[in-house]
Amino acid sequence: MHFMKKYYLIAPGPTPVPHEVLLEGAKEVLHHRTPQFINLMKETMEGAKYLFQTSGEVYAFVSSGTGAMEAAVQNLLSPGDKVLVVVAGKFGERWLDILTAFGMNPVKLELEWGEAVSPDQIREALEKNPDVKAVFTTHSETSTGTVIDLEGIAKVVRETDSVLVTDAVSSLLAEPLKMDEWGVDVVVSGSQKGVMLPPGLGFIAIGSEKAWKLVENSKSPKYYFDLKAYKKKYPENPYTPAVNMIYMLKKAVEMIKEETLEKVWERHALLGEATRRAVKALGFELLSKRPGNVVTAVKLPPDIDGNKLTKIMRDKYGVTIAGGQAHLKGKIIRISHLGYLSPFDTLTAFSALELTLKELGYKFEMGASLKTIQEYFAEKI
Amino acid sequence: MHFMKKYYLIAPGPTPVPHEVLLEGAKEVLHHRTPQFINLMKETMEGAKYLFQTSGEVYAFVSSGTGAMEAAVQNLLSPGDKVLVVVAGKFGERWLDILTAFGMNPVKLELEWGEAVSPDQIREALEKNPDVKAVFTTHSETSTGTVIDLEGIAKVVRETDSVLVTDAVSSLLAEPLKMDEWGVDVVVSGSQKGVMLPPGLGFIAIGSEKAWKLVENSKSPKYYFDLKAYKKKYPENPYTPAVNMIYMLKKAVEMIKEETLEKVWERHALLGEATRRAVKALGFELLSKRPGNVVTAVKLPPDIDGNKLTKIMRDKYGVTIAGGQAHLKGKIIRISHLGYLSPFDTLTAFSALELTLKELGYKFEMGASLKTIQEYFAEKI
Repeated sequence: MHFMKKYYLIAPGPTPVPHEVLLEGAKEVLHHRTPQFINLMKETMEGAKYLFQTSGEVYAFVSSGTGAMEAAVQNLLSPGDKVLVVVAGKFGERWLDILTAFGMNPVKLELEWGEAVSPDQIREALEKNPDVKAVFTTHSETSTGTVIDLEGIAKVVRETDSVLVTDAVSSLLAEPLKMDEWGVDVVVSGSQKGVMLPPGLGFIAIGSEKAWKLVENSKSPKYYFDLKAYKKKYPENPYTPAVNMIYMLKKAVEMIKEETLEKVWERHALLGEATRRAVKALGFELLSKRPGNVVTAVKLPPDIDGNKLTKIMRDKYGVTIAGGQAHLKGKIIRISHLGYLSPFDTLTAFSALELTLKELGYKFEMGASLKTIQEYFAEKI
Repeated sequence: MHFMKKYYLIAPGPTPVPHEVLLEGAKEVLHHRTPQFINLMKETMEGAKYLFQTSGEVYAFVSSGTGAMEAAVQNLLSPGDKVLVVVAGKFGERWLDILTAFGMNPVKLELEWGEAVSPDQIREALEKNPDVKAVFTTHSETSTGTVIDLEGIAKVVRETDSVLVTDAVSSLLAEPLKMDEWGVDVVVSGSQKGVMLPPGLGFIAIGSEKAWKLVENSKSPKYYFDLKAYKKKYPENPYTPAVNMIYMLKKAVEMIKEETLEKVWERHALLGEATRRAVKALGFELLSKRPGNVVTAVKLPPDIDGNKLTKIMRDKYGVTIAGGQAHLKGKIIRISHLGYLSPFDTLTAFSALELTLKELGYKFEMGASLKTIQEYFAEKI
């Protein structure tokens, strides 16, 4: 029977953008070297510090999150530098690839996909390798739905000479992250996740003097992402900034400040827990040993093809969730809690999921996951 | 007396964006790994080849134009490579800075700001340095309003083993540029100039096998801008693309195709010539020895402060033109012909300029430049 097919983006980035934010991007382009724009940029970037919970400067590159990751490597290190890198998924691998591309000497702390590195494992690795300049971590490993104990890890690293760098591309705003209080030296992120913007900005926040010292001494070749040039020009960019993205960022920061970070974290936790319960109600298991509230990765039974499942959900019902990456392709699905999503979006995801599972011949009680979600919401809201 | 102060952006980038393009950017964010978006991306990037007049692939980085310049250096060369670089303004200097940052061995062909390198000068430099791998040029030097004879230069370079790389960030669509016909190997550009988009995309077009061979052999450290990763994923980006910028690019490419490149070049030439005539009518001189139709740089008499002039035009009349850069700060003004500008925008620029010149005590016949422009338009339109 015919129905209205609306578009639901319930994937871990890009995420839905509020209409009032999108419309900011449709405003006239101000020239970037005028006081009018520079004041707006200053207010925006000062406001962005709240998102990272730092008094340090936050820089917005015209780039994806990967560009900001490259910037961290280029600016903190010199070729040959020994570093520790945690690899437990696709984005840990990305750190490793970038470190390798720029000629660093990475010591790998490798875990199975779905595991979370612990503060003790970091301590042990640092005791074995006391000469590493930096520790590269992934706060939320989007490929597995795993969130690490960043606060605990920061406690370990800050007692050493190393700086702690974390990829918070998908975790920023979805999970608590307090740079200054926890002592996280460098955080990178992107615009198209919890910040509720389209893709187009990569962020780097430098929270400590220890990190700036590395920046000053870095001998890696760099130009476009050279933080010294950005620092000198702050709040301006040395090159043309994405003016309309800055309008949108300003609006999003205002909305997040009004909502407060604590409430933003709370709403991600609500959808995360509802999803975990719904997954169990359908008889499925989680992939992650330490699941977070960014995205939930769900293991599928061998007779269900994850690629087919996500395709039907998207093309028949208009609901875009994510499949698995690399060796998990077809074997898991990932349901996002990220950004501008309401409880009813989670409900929608499971309604489309149930209808699709039925089509694929999976046996379960129709409505079971929806009932579970509804009961949880009724208890919590 | 009170008047309606509207915003006029008549600077050489960013440039005004048509409303119908801006509104494309306010559409819902599609997930970038769905066939729906990939098809749209393919159509858009195939369409973008028309802008460069190439059958080679065009890549859109999430970056400013400077990012695309860095990509050219990182992807074509290896540290220590000898290259020829033309420096006759701020953007020639940028090539030199990037080449130096990545450890190349640049032979400088330096000219005074405002001069245009000739094909003969390039031939001579290549005869003296037959071992250079690439020649780095600036098609339109935005800091001086100078356009080089790129067609003539390409004729010289294509008889050698070098590849010709040109910065067409400001010239693309404002000046004729025919990559394949002329034999220009590599062209970089940006979104916020002739393409009529907000800042946010950097383009690189690779037009020859000679250039791809260099890409294959390059040993420079790179990751974010690694063209091999982009080539493998084409038309997708290896990292999250700026989805909404791609919507806008699609619309702009459609508009440009409908208008035709020849007509786009024609309208830039119309505003360029009108401006040069108006400048003379006010008793001023051009800075450039070979002025193009991207932007016109005007020398000011010593008793007129260019900084003051552009500030009054902007803050009192709402008309943003550009001042001088580096040692030309305060000594010149630059009036743009770039992108979404009509003849009446040129008229507006000169009306505000005349009113400001009067305020600054410059002696001239009020309306002289407007009359000149009007007569030229009447003759041509």
